[in-house]
Amino acid sequence: MTNLSPLEAPARALIELCIARGLTIVTAESCTGGLIAGVLTEIAGSSAVVDRGFVTYSNEAKSEMIGVPAELIKRVGAVSQEVALAMAAGALAKSGADLAIAVTGIAGPGGGSPEKPVGLVHFGVMRRGSPARHAVHVFADRDRSGVRFATVSEALALLREVATQES
Amino acid sequence: MTNLSPLEAPARALIELCIARGLTIVTAESCTGGLIAGVLTEIAGSSAVVDRGFVTYSNEAKSEMIGVPAELIKRVGAVSQEVALAMAAGALAKSGADLAIAVTGIAGPGGGSPEKPVGLVHFGVMRRGSPARHAVHVFADRDRSGVRFATVSEALALLREVATQES
Repeated sequence: MTNLSPLEAPARALIELCIARGLTIVTAESCTGGLIAGVLTEIAGSSAVVDRGFVTYSNEAKSEMIGVPAELIKRVGAVSQEVALAMAAGALAKSGADLAIAVTGIAGPGGGSPEKPVGLVHFGVMRRGSPARHAVHVFADRDRSGVRFATVSEALALLREVATQES
Repeated sequence: MTNLSPLEAPARALIELCIARGLTIVTAESCTGGLIAGVLTEIAGSSAVVDRGFVTYSNEAKSEMIGVPAELIKRVGAVSQEVALAMAAGALAKSGADLAIAVTGIAGPGGGSPEKPVGLVHFGVMRRGSPARHAVHVFADRDRSGVRFATVSEALALLREVATQES
């Protein structure tokens, strides 16, 4: 089971930053399955920041909840730059939040391939009014919990970046 | 930060039970903020069971994502039997899943009152084709993490009950 304790400090810093700047957050999570929202809401006072979260675990959920085109998923795969960006934009469109983080990846132990190995995670991050940005990591040599932990940690870092960006 | 490790075994048992019975799950979480879905998706193979999750942290999210009437929230409060049941029914209606779990409560440290103390959590659980059922607990003398942990644990137990129920 993923040990989230090391993420309490960065989560608290992010929540405090967002409160100071009046920013709210929406999450769209595939491989982390709710842990990003779970970590953010661990912080007392996070209700001023966390608007909602979409756990889009199945492909149908990605399409039905946040409007990722099924055709896109079929063409490039759910774990892809294109889908990560579409998830971030869709989450923002389906909420009133200022910032969106989206993650889609292969947590393992199964599901990997030479082109898309276990540990591959695509991130989409977006601030309302700015274009969605993409990041990709391969969290190699980690088990399922390790991949998920690294993904949540990187998601917090990306949210901090867009929260500090001049609007 | 909530330590979820003790929940790995019950989460695994629930996922295996659902796989054996061909059942899928949708979550609707307020006070746990995604941790129920996060714990379920920790288990390898959970993609066969977890369809999607709604983190309905704000009142607007409860209404917009899963159709809880805003009037109902205004009348009885977000932390109530009525809203928990409406969340479970709404989550099932907004997904193709067989089982729904919904939680709404006061994790603290703020937000409590004599009528609705910190630790009060209402649960709604529903199997498609059967009426939604309600449970309520007061997880007293616990901090925020403790309330959230107890809520996730009880949610897994309630899902197990409806998964084993004869359909």
